[in-house]
Amino acid sequence: MDRDKLKELLESVAAGNTSTASALERLRALPFEDIGFAKVDHHRDLRQGHPEAIFGAGKTPEQIVQIMARMREKGSNILVTRCSSDAVASIVADFPDAQYHEAARAVTLVTTPMQQREGYIAIVCAGTSDLPVAEEAAVTCEFNGNAVKRVYDVGVAGLHRLLGQHETLTKANTIVVCAGMEGALPSVVGGLVDVPVIAVPTSVGYGANFGGLSALLTMLNSCATGIAVVNIDNGFGAGMLASMINRIAGTAR
Amino acid sequence: MDRDKLKELLESVAAGNTSTASALERLRALPFEDIGFAKVDHHRDLRQGHPEAIFGAGKTPEQIVQIMARMREKGSNILVTRCSSDAVASIVADFPDAQYHEAARAVTLVTTPMQQREGYIAIVCAGTSDLPVAEEAAVTCEFNGNAVKRVYDVGVAGLHRLLGQHETLTKANTIVVCAGMEGALPSVVGGLVDVPVIAVPTSVGYGANFGGLSALLTMLNSCATGIAVVNIDNGFGAGMLASMINRIAGTAR
Amino acid sequence: MDRDKLKELLESVAAGNTSTASALERLRALPFEDIGFAKVDHHRDLRQGHPEAIFGAGKTPEQIVQIMARMREKGSNILVTRCSSDAVASIVADFPDAQYHEAARAVTLVTTPMQQREGYIAIVCAGTSDLPVAEEAAVTCEFNGNAVKRVYDVGVAGLHRLLGQHETLTKANTIVVCAGMEGALPSVVGGLVDVPVIAVPTSVGYGANFGGLSALLTMLNSCATGIAVVNIDNGFGAGMLASMINRIAGTAR
Amino acid sequence: MDRDKLKELLESVAAGNTSTASALERLRALPFEDIGFAKVDHHRDLRQGHPEAIFGAGKTPEQIVQIMARMREKGSNILVTRCSSDAVASIVADFPDAQYHEAARAVTLVTTPMQQREGYIAIVCAGTSDLPVAEEAAVTCEFNGNAVKRVYDVGVAGLHRLLGQHETLTKANTIVVCAGMEGALPSVVGGLVDVPVIAVPTSVGYGANFGGLSALLTMLNSCATGIAVVNIDNGFGAGMLASMINRIAGTAR
Amino acid sequence: MDRDKLKELLESVAAGNTSTASALERLRALPFEDIGFAKVDHHRDLRQGHPEAIFGAGKTPEQIVQIMARMREKGSNILVTRCSSDAVASIVADFPDAQYHEAARAVTLVTTPMQQREGYIAIVCAGTSDLPVAEEAAVTCEFNGNAVKRVYDVGVAGLHRLLGQHETLTKANTIVVCAGMEGALPSVVGGLVDVPVIAVPTSVGYGANFGGLSALLTMLNSCATGIAVVNIDNGFGAGMLASMINRIAGTAR
Amino acid sequence: MDRDKLKELLESVAAGNTSTASALERLRALPFEDIGFAKVDHHRDLRQGHPEAIFGAGKTPEQIVQIMARMREKGSNILVTRCSSDAVASIVADFPDAQYHEAARAVTLVTTPMQQREGYIAIVCAGTSDLPVAEEAAVTCEFNGNAVKRVYDVGVAGLHRLLGQHETLTKANTIVVCAGMEGALPSVVGGLVDVPVIAVPTSVGYGANFGGLSALLTMLNSCATGIAVVNIDNGFGAGMLASMINRIAGTAR
Amino acid sequence: MDRDKLKELLESVAAGNTSTASALERLRALPFEDIGFAKVDHHRDLRQGHPEAIFGAGKTPEQIVQIMARMREKGSNILVTRCSSDAVASIVADFPDAQYHEAARAVTLVTTPMQQREGYIAIVCAGTSDLPVAEEAAVTCEFNGNAVKRVYDVGVAGLHRLLGQHETLTKANTIVVCAGMEGALPSVVGGLVDVPVIAVPTSVGYGANFGGLSALLTMLNSCATGIAVVNIDNGFGAGMLASMINRIAGTAR
Amino acid sequence: MDRDKLKELLESVAAGNTSTASALERLRALPFEDIGFAKVDHHRDLRQGHPEAIFGAGKTPEQIVQIMARMREKGSNILVTRCSSDAVASIVADFPDAQYHEAARAVTLVTTPMQQREGYIAIVCAGTSDLPVAEEAAVTCEFNGNAVKRVYDVGVAGLHRLLGQHETLTKANTIVVCAGMEGALPSVVGGLVDVPVIAVPTSVGYGANFGGLSALLTMLNSCATGIAVVNIDNGFGAGMLASMINRIAGTAR
Repeated sequence: MDRDKLKELLESVAAGNTSTASALERLRALPFEDIGFAKVDHHRDLRQGHPEAIFGAGKTPEQIVQIMARMREKGSNILVTRCSSDAVASIVADFPDAQYHEAARAVTLVTTPMQQREGYIAIVCAGTSDLPVAEEAAVTCEFNGNAVKRVYDVGVAGLHRLLGQHETLTKANTIVVCAGMEGALPSVVGGLVDVPVIAVPTSVGYGANFGGLSALLTMLNSCATGIAVVNIDNGFGAGMLASMINRIAGTAR
Repeated sequence: MDRDKLKELLESVAAGNTSTASALERLRALPFEDIGFAKVDHHRDLRQGHPEAIFGAGKTPEQIVQIMARMREKGSNILVTRCSSDAVASIVADFPDAQYHEAARAVTLVTTPMQQREGYIAIVCAGTSDLPVAEEAAVTCEFNGNAVKRVYDVGVAGLHRLLGQHETLTKANTIVVCAGMEGALPSVVGGLVDVPVIAVPTSVGYGANFGGLSALLTMLNSCATGIAVVNIDNGFGAGMLASMINRIAGTAR
Repeated sequence: MDRDKLKELLESVAAGNTSTASALERLRALPFEDIGFAKVDHHRDLRQGHPEAIFGAGKTPEQIVQIMARMREKGSNILVTRCSSDAVASIVADFPDAQYHEAARAVTLVTTPMQQREGYIAIVCAGTSDLPVAEEAAVTCEFNGNAVKRVYDVGVAGLHRLLGQHETLTKANTIVVCAGMEGALPSVVGGLVDVPVIAVPTSVGYGANFGGLSALLTMLNSCATGIAVVNIDNGFGAGMLASMINRIAGTAR
Repeated sequence: MDRDKLKELLESVAAGNTSTASALERLRALPFEDIGFAKVDHHRDLRQGHPEAIFGAGKTPEQIVQIMARMREKGSNILVTRCSSDAVASIVADFPDAQYHEAARAVTLVTTPMQQREGYIAIVCAGTSDLPVAEEAAVTCEFNGNAVKRVYDVGVAGLHRLLGQHETLTKANTIVVCAGMEGALPSVVGGLVDVPVIAVPTSVGYGANFGGLSALLTMLNSCATGIAVVNIDNGFGAGMLASMINRIAGTAR
Repeated sequence: MDRDKLKELLESVAAGNTSTASALERLRALPFEDIGFAKVDHHRDLRQGHPEAIFGAGKTPEQIVQIMARMREKGSNILVTRCSSDAVASIVADFPDAQYHEAARAVTLVTTPMQQREGYIAIVCAGTSDLPVAEEAAVTCEFNGNAVKRVYDVGVAGLHRLLGQHETLTKANTIVVCAGMEGALPSVVGGLVDVPVIAVPTSVGYGANFGGLSALLTMLNSCATGIAVVNIDNGFGAGMLASMINRIAGTAR
Repeated sequence: MDRDKLKELLESVAAGNTSTASALERLRALPFEDIGFAKVDHHRDLRQGHPEAIFGAGKTPEQIVQIMARMREKGSNILVTRCSSDAVASIVADFPDAQYHEAARAVTLVTTPMQQREGYIAIVCAGTSDLPVAEEAAVTCEFNGNAVKRVYDVGVAGLHRLLGQHETLTKANTIVVCAGMEGALPSVVGGLVDVPVIAVPTSVGYGANFGGLSALLTMLNSCATGIAVVNIDNGFGAGMLASMINRIAGTAR
Repeated sequence: MDRDKLKELLESVAAGNTSTASALERLRALPFEDIGFAKVDHHRDLRQGHPEAIFGAGKTPEQIVQIMARMREKGSNILVTRCSSDAVASIVADFPDAQYHEAARAVTLVTTPMQQREGYIAIVCAGTSDLPVAEEAAVTCEFNGNAVKRVYDVGVAGLHRLLGQHETLTKANTIVVCAGMEGALPSVVGGLVDVPVIAVPTSVGYGANFGGLSALLTMLNSCATGIAVVNIDNGFGAGMLASMINRIAGTAR
Repeated sequence: MDRDKLKELLESVAAGNTSTASALERLRALPFEDIGFAKVDHHRDLRQGHPEAIFGAGKTPEQIVQIMARMREKGSNILVTRCSSDAVASIVADFPDAQYHEAARAVTLVTTPMQQREGYIAIVCAGTSDLPVAEEAAVTCEFNGNAVKRVYDVGVAGLHRLLGQHETLTKANTIVVCAGMEGALPSVVGGLVDVPVIAVPTSVGYGANFGGLSALLTMLNSCATGIAVVNIDNGFGAGMLASMINRIAGTAR
């Protein structure tokens, strides 16, 4: 029941066509769905081309294609993450205008491009192995209408490369930093800038990295201020969070 | 070596009083400190009343008072977190204009009040036991010049209280959510709003909460988008991150 | 806004005293709280003497007494768990009709006794050290109007004592089993009966019990069917769950 | 030694054909097996068509088929869980009347249908990835003679869908809730109803979900009352526990 | 129901005073307890002076003294482990013939000394901090009638001291080895002898020893053969296991 | 340097052919190896047909066959554990008299059979999935000259089957108990007998069994006495430990 | 900006061609990169044939070959670790002078051999399964110009083999010790020598070794002095650390 | 049996006073102790004033004083770590020439000062809370005859302070770096220098630092080369390792 129907019901009561008892019953029976829908409406339905995301891992190519078809009918822009090569083949066959982002293991299908925001998001990563996570974050940001500047391959062991990108970092509205192994990079970046740093631990490494746990704990215990941590390898989540922060920024600084 | 000294050195070279070899040597010997100071300078020294924070836990009252004295000489506004009652007594004795925030276990000493920003930060917590962490976040936000709206005692088991504060949540620039035990509150809040939610796991609970680990994992694995996680009980870190995000927002939405 | 107020509002619309626009606004502004309260109402407010529980750990005696005073005004029956001796002293001083259950570390204050249900709940524990948790469960069950049969000190190392209580176990509507150390007792009980067994791991033990983790994992991995696990030392939660199951049972079997 | 043999022995003693010493010896030699069997008898053998379950994982198709053959001879209804496609092929070839439940990865072979109970069990799950676990629970419930209502795809991020099923939830005798990632759904459901909620953590997710640990800890630490937790991905165990609870309920509420 | 009562019942049946139906009923009603007691009887009641142990930790002095009084009435020899100094004072006051073993934090009260066995058990420990655990094992062994040879302060860092005790080790029937920190001593001892080595990890150490976890894992992963591991700090359990093994040995080797 | 060479050296000194200084030098240079070999000698070389074991996991068929060839030259009996089917094929091709134990995934090659000891070892396991571990233990025991009695498929959920084997258990010199999932079986067996129980946690199970951790912790925390724990899935280690204990037993009891 | 450019800038200031303000600006704009490069320069660029390492795991053969080509252009000596057989094939095809170290899973490509240092590094390992890690360390040491002495297959269970290599150990400048399972070997070696022992836990083992965690904790908790621990299976890191220590040693001792 | 006795025995054999058989017997009986003592002798007894260390934690003041008295008789220099204030009082009372190092919680008692080595060890720490660990390392180094340069309060969040000490770091023979919380400092230092960096994780921090685990994992996973990790808070171990490395260095670099 959306806002219109709610209004209609109240008018019907006002007109004497519906008893208060009956209205009470209807209101009690379906209340949350109405209000819930209203919220969704506000956030997503008000404009065409709103974005939708599909987590591709653990879904068959057929399932992904079916979900995409339903979404496209609603006019949504679509982002598929964690795509297997089989899934990519199926998608491209069914949606020739879909775009495959290989390094990010992602596909986008854009009907109505998002309006570009001012300002940009910096995406930083330590090593080439962290690249798939960093690119997932970057593609997510771009898909949501944000400009992105990539600062890759700047691990703490070669601090000079990071420091050489000082200006790019300090002028961003927010920075996503992906790092595996010891995961120290967000702390160092956080010490250089005064904007929020979104730290993404990656599962890159071996032995006592315990699948990304070492980098995760490092980031949670950072002594730098302004560090926001997301789940291990969660480039998509970091990109969404960065998009929200960048949307808040009225103007580029 | 600060900016003035660097300029002086270059002028001395220009004047022929210092050889290039000798200048090169001096620059190589101390380069990072100079530039480092420059950075700090830019961020903090350019205006009076810049804020400084002291982590009070594990410091004696004497140590805290000494550090405060040094900071005050520089004209800094000061925030002391995790204050024991002994520390509070010592601080108030030496700094009569210090303000004690009992629920937050924090003290502030403000020389030059920060300029108030437009917009506000919402601070949400589940139960009364989470209050010290929530208040540490709230005091940190206020100390940094942000307006705060408190939404307390709204656990997921009594969802109606949370939903009743719907408008307060959706109009905030960012929301800090503190929760212990199962830590599900940030996911629920994240499903209601489209601004960044800063999730603070607290150590509240017992048994298989493992000192806050359960809430921490819950928050890292949230299926809602826009969730930024900080360390267990880290109200200060959440407050600093919220302040950075609120500063980015040019205007209240 | 409770059910009466909602009805009143609708009647006011029907009477033409409130415009549909204004009613819509009021309904949208507070919708969830209304419905929430309605739910709470249904569950709790419809009859006098409804029960309320306070988790005493980490609350001062003053806080506990204040909360109790507010609850009593509403006519609630009150259960306070995890009471320190200081808290007990304060409570008894202010509420002379409160009853202290020493072994359970709990206090009850009953205004209108719950109607007793048919059938009973069996509470089983392995050793005397598990007794506080078992008694917390037992007192919780009794407070909620259930008959309880205690089967204590029946660890797996002395299986004969447990088996001697066979009939008491098989005739219960549900059984709460508390065990620390290796926590094997619920598996054994679960193999003897065909009613739900609520397994409560306790933190009793040392070394590789890791504060109850060993018993918790044992119970989660039980090869017996019908085992429901709750948090470590959570006698209250087990008692509430048992009460719900016993309430479902229409008649004693 | 079954009940008949025990009676026979006693009659032989009564008739003077067996000395008490000799009877004592025989009773001491085999006592547990006798009594054990008696118990099993009471629970299972008294009626035809009693159900038996086989955990299919880690068993070869041949092993499964052999066990099924032995069970069918006893007239048992049979449930096989965690079936590989190879196992399904073998089973269907040998038992043409077996029914394959693809989504649940389970096979049932029903000789004498269970009598249907009044009332129903609700099965809730958050996302499509949790479906195999939810279906395993649902099939287990149905196999044991329970009506089931499925409430799928109602994650906490889209609360309105869950709330729209409010009535289905509140009228169930018990509810099974399957959720991976942060596992917050059982807490939310538990806040809406006053029947036992059986929480099944699933291994769905990645990174810091540590194979389902995050959801497990969330559920164990739930601040809602009436939450019963089972092992990660244990849909079968949840279904058995729900069946026991539903059997206790004399009538639908 | 003990053995005499069972015999009595059978005689009553034989005499025609009890019907077989009635006897069957009584046997079915209490069967396990009878047989259970029979077992206990066989192991413990057949001889005077059988040993009983009390785990003193978490028991009040009064509780310990009461349990001891009950045991003494049965003529048991008594061992109390993990005694606080308060408990010791109470025990000695009530039982003047009790013996306090300070290093082991244990008390023994021996009415009828156990018959000494041939052969001996070696107790080995690495450092002086492991001594309380080693002494608990030693006192337990002696209390159960075993000769003990102590080989203390022989850590792996000073291998020569251990090797100097080579003969004492190789002639023992079994060896208890207590070690904290890295816990490598059992592996080294196990490489020197061909009798069972009972490895007791101790919680001695700090940091990444995680309360004894490091030593525990070391011992479980030992590449030496014949290593039996018990719980962290479980000197009593090691002593009981060693006593069982030494009892099996018919003669000293 | 073996015993003969050592004797030879001393005779050479005695004969004046070697100076004491030179002998001292030679003794210091190689001392440990000599003595080490002496020890090995004592344990293994003194009789023909001494047993040797090869851990097959992670070795190529070629490596295994080469090691076996070298061992056979020394006249050793050989046990290969954790054999892949490829390894079995290679071994059988090269050593036609080798015997393959399929259920144990092991191969034995016996040149001179070990003398059979009196008494026997009982091997107990809970479910059919624990069988490979139990059989590895059984084959290891038999290979070392011990009689074995197998008591399989006696999980705690069907206690009557275990209790029906009471006599087999109580007459064994020691008992190996293999169990996965909750791992409670050793506690129950330990409560029935008074001989050492060797507990082998298996990795059987899923979810919160964490690869055998749950069973391991259960066994370490057992409240029964006389429980000796070995590594997860370590049937070989349990078999070796049982063999040592059985060797100590002079006579069957 | 490298050292030459910095000098040039200063000379330009000295010559009056660049204003101090402009120089200040340029220095502030790029400072870190300059100084960073200077550091790298100092460490690596000053001599031909400096070594570079590539972590081969997770890189495609093409990626490895491309990186090698770029490095060779700079005249670097190259070490590739963790090489798959595919990668080895590609490398050897493109760089016929590359040398494959099979046991170490590594490839070296040496243009200008490093000058050999005096003294040597001992590499010790417990079992043949630890060999790949030990060889990775050995090849890394040799690649960096160090002599290596291998002491393999000397586990603590056969102490005599280790002790027989006493002199080789005591004369080394540093010792790398690789061990899996219980990881006790570094403690034993550390007790024999007075040079730094670099302990490398390996993931060799099963069950409660938790992928090398057991050996890691053992080594961190070693009671021997002079133990330096690196990550699990990190033979390369151990080799680099050993090389640094050996470089410090001016002469062999 | 020391070297003299061994020589004596051989001479006795040479003189015909001892038969080879008897000598063989004596050599076999006590061999390890002899050789063991020889080793100890070589390392420690050959010179006066050799250092000895006592781990003070968990020892009573009386125990510490007694051990010190015995050590002093041998002429040893003594270092006591982890001293309680009670212990310090007792020590100073009995040994007036003992020196108390308050920040390090350590006492030294030097009879014959160690000869000072050339070159120095740098000790770095991040925050003032890490100071006790850093000072324990520093005092240990100095006690062993090494010069120390302290570089304190140089956390990664204020990189400029660290970089300002660049020269002190690069000229050290080895560097001890103590850091808690995220523990990133050793990675950063390791990227700046080419000498071994000894990383000491400290337990400083809260929440998800899990008592130092976060810093420990960070350091083990460092992507910088030349990082040697020791146990959490193990300043003494780091100091001993640094001393060994500095001793290897023939000359200052």
